[in-house]
Amino acid sequence: MSSFFTIEWQDGAVVMLDQRLLPTQEVYRTYRDYRGVARAIKDMVIRGAPAIGVAAALGIALGARQLKRIDNPAEFERLCQVFAATRPTAVNLFWAIKRMGGVYARTRALGREAICEHLEREALQIHAEDIAANRRLGRYGATLIAKGATVLTHCNAGALATAGYGTALGVIRAAWEQGKKVSVFVPETRPFLQGARLTAWELSKLGIPATLITDSMVGHFMQKGAIDCVVVGTDRTAANGDVANKIGTYTTAVLAARHQVPFYVAAPTSSIDLHCASGALIPIEERAAREVTHVLRQQIAPTGIRVANPAFDVTPHELVSAIVTERGIARDPFGQSLSELVRKGGKAKKEKGEKERT
Amino acid sequence: MSSFFTIEWQDGAVVMLDQRLLPTQEVYRTYRDYRGVARAIKDMVIRGAPAIGVAAALGIALGARQLKRIDNPAEFERLCQVFAATRPTAVNLFWAIKRMGGVYARTRALGREAICEHLEREALQIHAEDIAANRRLGRYGATLIAKGATVLTHCNAGALATAGYGTALGVIRAAWEQGKKVSVFVPETRPFLQGARLTAWELSKLGIPATLITDSMVGHFMQKGAIDCVVVGTDRTAANGDVANKIGTYTTAVLAARHQVPFYVAAPTSSIDLHCASGALIPIEERAAREVTHVLRQQIAPTGIRVANPAFDVTPHELVSAIVTERGIARDPFGQSLSELVRKGGKAKKEKGEKERT
Repeated sequence: MSSFFTIEWQDGAVVMLDQRLLPTQEVYRTYRDYRGVARAIKDMVIRGAPAIGVAAALGIALGARQLKRIDNPAEFERLCQVFAATRPTAVNLFWAIKRMGGVYARTRALGREAICEHLEREALQIHAEDIAANRRLGRYGATLIAKGATVLTHCNAGALATAGYGTALGVIRAAWEQGKKVSVFVPETRPFLQGARLTAWELSKLGIPATLITDSMVGHFMQKGAIDCVVVGTDRTAANGDVANKIGTYTTAVLAARHQVPFYVAAPTSSIDLHCASGALIPIEERAAREVTHVLRQQIAPTGIRVANPAFDVTPHELVSAIVTERGIARDPFGQSLSELVRKGGKAKKEKGEKERT
Repeated sequence: MSSFFTIEWQDGAVVMLDQRLLPTQEVYRTYRDYRGVARAIKDMVIRGAPAIGVAAALGIALGARQLKRIDNPAEFERLCQVFAATRPTAVNLFWAIKRMGGVYARTRALGREAICEHLEREALQIHAEDIAANRRLGRYGATLIAKGATVLTHCNAGALATAGYGTALGVIRAAWEQGKKVSVFVPETRPFLQGARLTAWELSKLGIPATLITDSMVGHFMQKGAIDCVVVGTDRTAANGDVANKIGTYTTAVLAARHQVPFYVAAPTSSIDLHCASGALIPIEERAAREVTHVLRQQIAPTGIRVANPAFDVTPHELVSAIVTERGIARDPFGQSLSELVRKGGKAKKEKGEKERT
């Protein structure tokens, strides 16, 4: 087991590891007021789309107890709005809020205590489901990882980006837990340094051998034959298998293709957007210049220099060897394999729902 | 003319702009002891292969005056060894040391004052030749740059990397001076940030439009069609056209090839090593882990993490569109074209030498 956690519900409070202070300080923050949780999401105490969804769900469960008139839907709606406004691009945020809203609608007539209990139970369920899905995804992904393999990842798609196990790092972790003795190359992932600050720290905590490099070294180590495969996460995957992920992922995929290194994407089905036909339709968020001109608080570029800072890039599906989900592994042609996996889950849920109703 | 200088000989001392403090501070350091010059090369007060060669030559000229028994070849040899040990990948270093050694051998019998004067004159000659060669190289290279082109470079192969005009930036600068209205994409070049700290600063000083990006963004902007060509410098180019340059250059070359973006190398003939058959034989300097775990003085990675920090990579000649020298442009097959250009210079020098002797 790992010696840290990302987010937990403890004695009626939300507790989070403050990721802004990693890797030099490990500080857990306890929130007894939902406004604190919302601010923590906004200020990136916690980040990563699945983790943000879990934090919002727990925050709503916490906030419900603070409401004066919980049976008033307008009050509950205002509570949800506070969370919807935190990181408006994270799709899991809205998905989690919608699930909490559904529970509220079904239990509103049952009285304060019952509403609060059901909301709390749903938030904990979202938390547990995320970890369970990550573990299933990890087991599928581990079948692709050879014994003793050196795996390169990018950014942080680990326990810190989810409720607690990780997607890309979940694959690596599952392989490690199976005794495969893998090791990992970790590009630092400028500008926000999620690789250096979070992934390197997480792997250290797990005892998995990791080598930190700069993003500019990926080609060199592929050329040297030091990398056996690449596993990355994704912020959104289009219906055709085009993958939007942290800036730098596309460069890594091009290098992997040149060197015949398999390039795998760990994509929970919640991140697969069948309504999005191709990567060209995925909007790329442009972030503040200061992330590039500064490293943390330190200025590294001349004052006033022009900067470009796209947060993501799109890797075309022809560079992707396989997409690993919690329901199985999709391969080319992705248009077919991805929609089958996503529909499979829908069908499973529907069947489960029907059984529950009988 | 530019409003700064890289290295100069002033009143019997070596004066350098401390490049470690750029872009936030412009500090010139004066060295009156050769050991200070050697340490400045090692500590990267000055960097860039041609600049290192010039610094070593001036340092030897300075050190000669400090020797107790200058007519003792062993003492002079020890002086040269101090410089040879500073940065082993830079071929210009050895080339400059060899030139100074040649002058010493020819003048050793002439007595202390004559030896010192000849060494000083040779070092200043190397300085002046470097700037003149850069200007010629720039004019050749500018013929490859279209009007209005967006050029991507890597690291700093500018005035700061040479005695004063630049190789890759010399090409861009020559195109700019010809009124071609070019603009430049500048990857920051981790770990040492020569792009963000030096190239962005130098281009700002020259008034050439520049956009700073992280190294991880190069692929994205090539994919978007934003880059018309790449021009980089080189620390050493092998006889077959394989190019050793700052880590990240190989990645850029792979991306350029995928996107049919011409990839040009600005290589003064002093950086072409005909005795080195291929890039596989070029030693790659491994630098301190701290450059990766820290940005300037700030820690960005967990304490104790394993780090790889190769300072250079090798771009195979098949990814190189053309190599620009101060004697013309070499194209595939480079084995032939490079040796012709290098021999052309040798012949010209020999003829010049013969004329002078008559």
